[in-house]
Amino acid sequence: MTRLERTYLDWNATAPLLPQAREAMLAALGMTGNPSSVHGEGRALRMLVEAARRDVAALVGAEPAHVVFTSGATEAANMVLTPDFRMGRTPLSIGRLFVSEIEHPAVREGGRFPRESVTGVPVTPDGIVDTGALDALLAAHDTAAGMPMVAVMLANNETGIVQPVAAVAEIVRRYGGLLVIDAVQAAGRLPIAISALDADFLILSSHKLGGPKGAGALVSRGEVLMPAALVRGGGQEKGHRSGTENPAALAGFAAAARFALDGLAERNARIAALRDRLEAGMRRVANGAIVYGSGTERLSNTVFFSLPGLKSETGQIAFDLEGIALSAGSACSSGKVGQSHVLTAMGFDASTGGLRVSIGPSTTETDVERFLAAFARIVARRRGRADAA
Amino acid sequence: MTRLERTYLDWNATAPLLPQAREAMLAALGMTGNPSSVHGEGRALRMLVEAARRDVAALVGAEPAHVVFTSGATEAANMVLTPDFRMGRTPLSIGRLFVSEIEHPAVREGGRFPRESVTGVPVTPDGIVDTGALDALLAAHDTAAGMPMVAVMLANNETGIVQPVAAVAEIVRRYGGLLVIDAVQAAGRLPIAISALDADFLILSSHKLGGPKGAGALVSRGEVLMPAALVRGGGQEKGHRSGTENPAALAGFAAAARFALDGLAERNARIAALRDRLEAGMRRVANGAIVYGSGTERLSNTVFFSLPGLKSETGQIAFDLEGIALSAGSACSSGKVGQSHVLTAMGFDASTGGLRVSIGPSTTETDVERFLAAFARIVARRRGRADAA
Repeated sequence: MTRLERTYLDWNATAPLLPQAREAMLAALGMTGNPSSVHGEGRALRMLVEAARRDVAALVGAEPAHVVFTSGATEAANMVLTPDFRMGRTPLSIGRLFVSEIEHPAVREGGRFPRESVTGVPVTPDGIVDTGALDALLAAHDTAAGMPMVAVMLANNETGIVQPVAAVAEIVRRYGGLLVIDAVQAAGRLPIAISALDADFLILSSHKLGGPKGAGALVSRGEVLMPAALVRGGGQEKGHRSGTENPAALAGFAAAARFALDGLAERNARIAALRDRLEAGMRRVANGAIVYGSGTERLSNTVFFSLPGLKSETGQIAFDLEGIALSAGSACSSGKVGQSHVLTAMGFDASTGGLRVSIGPSTTETDVERFLAAFARIVARRRGRADAA
Repeated sequence: MTRLERTYLDWNATAPLLPQAREAMLAALGMTGNPSSVHGEGRALRMLVEAARRDVAALVGAEPAHVVFTSGATEAANMVLTPDFRMGRTPLSIGRLFVSEIEHPAVREGGRFPRESVTGVPVTPDGIVDTGALDALLAAHDTAAGMPMVAVMLANNETGIVQPVAAVAEIVRRYGGLLVIDAVQAAGRLPIAISALDADFLILSSHKLGGPKGAGALVSRGEVLMPAALVRGGGQEKGHRSGTENPAALAGFAAAARFALDGLAERNARIAALRDRLEAGMRRVANGAIVYGSGTERLSNTVFFSLPGLKSETGQIAFDLEGIALSAGSACSSGKVGQSHVLTAMGFDASTGGLRVSIGPSTTETDVERFLAAFARIVARRRGRADAA
């Protein structure tokens, strides 16, 4: 099997770099200078950074001035998840962080909150945040210690399940809290407007959109209430994030953001059709397959499934040998395949684990057919072994 | 004047991307996948990240296992400058941070130390850290509050003056402190070995070496005593720095590190000859020019100078209009030309300010001649105005 026959079905881990993002990066890499320098070279790069800010703001209906660029979504999460806020120049303390139990580790770790100030919010067996439980937790929160902060993702990275953020926002408002929405997996897949979401902060990642790795953003609703800077120094990003800006990465991020906005509905319909075909094919071959969240609103690109008796680690290796790149949950800790905290939170036995197929704009029918052929071979081999035993 | 005639003499702000770094990046950008994924695509990128780690380690004579990649030097500084350390798993508190008054803002801001736990260390009028003052400060430090940490740069970004790090290390050892060396401007310009420097931590930047922006490293002497992670989440970089690794940026960083090690002495000799020619030419035109640190050991690439009566901001704009990109001090806060804290610390009147010419491996004699021609025109215009007045 040659390299060319590989089939990449792990878009939720990282999307292939879009040609237009690559081109934008190459153009910026050809420009010498530091965007903070006042000479011509610096000013040209400053313009590029500010153009990128407008494009990323447009992706989520925000003001460009409310976009703080970071090195990625994990940094953005660590920046905003802190008890240490400023209202203008006045310090303001956040009393407690409430995070759903299916958040990405970048959020679930709680950033700069001490561990004892982080409370998990359970999810229902359907894989959505339990809004009743959130309401009860916020009702019991003592605001004397500071307002509460709630962090919930818009769509889950493992299951693709869309979270009830409108209901969450309504509850958070009622208790005078701050709402942080991790839009990393949703951006480019769902239409997003920060004001319609009624969120105070959004977290974005470039490389999940088809932009390069090494760029992300913390987008805010306003600019008065902001977290204390995580990375301090030269005062870039209006003091919110120091360090030389990365124009090439930001230009690529911006190109991906423009692509994401353009023709989203048509793209989603095409992706959903491929996904449906893939799921129907799986069920034909193995009707015991469980697809998590198949009865719930999901991203159109994600299929998180289990085959009874097939360990996710074994399954992932088997698919890899067949030339198919897919994932056992999220690809976050260095090479380790841990148990899915998402399945555990949903009340499933996580010891078997799930396999995640995630597709994207350049996924083809051939990719789906290759997956299904590999799936059929893996299932047949397992049946053969079961018959022999 | 066409764009092609621009002369870039601002290498200390950022170096032009090396062709070999660009090539390494392009190769990596063509590879799809997340280095933390266990499938073939992920493993290929993991190999690339680990190869980069070996190259960056080699640049400073360190163990690859002791290199933590970050998004840049500012992040690395914020990571290591913290009272919150771990000795293995045991928390350990650093009592106070001592930073020289000529440190880059990324270090001078003190990272995660509260402002009241940061003490400035004065420099002599020669622009080098006052080791007598450091000794006295450490002698007066109460170790009951925790060991002291000292942060000193190997070479200053504005003047290029090489700091007495051997003497500093001897003092820090005597008082049982931790030594952090900001090697951002020195790397690729001076031979560096972390053990010869007797440093506990080194801070490195990719883009000052000719690598891309968006990569840096915190290099440690060992791996037992480490700062608490600044960016938490998925557990990448052995838990020291979470967030999806950026293989393209790291491959470019590695290419720049390899270039920096190769033929350093010859390159430095050539750069020093250009620098000497530039300084001699300046003195012929304006013998009142002050070159800071000309009597002290300096990087071979940096000329920080003042012309009596020429404000640095005015001078920078005049050179920019002549097609020459140079800097008024460091390019760190968004577009603002502040007073040089380095000149102030050296006891000069910083209101006039200095202009920094910084050159590099691809600087040519033509670049130097263009600078000198522009310099002569600017000086002549000033004389003309003075005569007319």
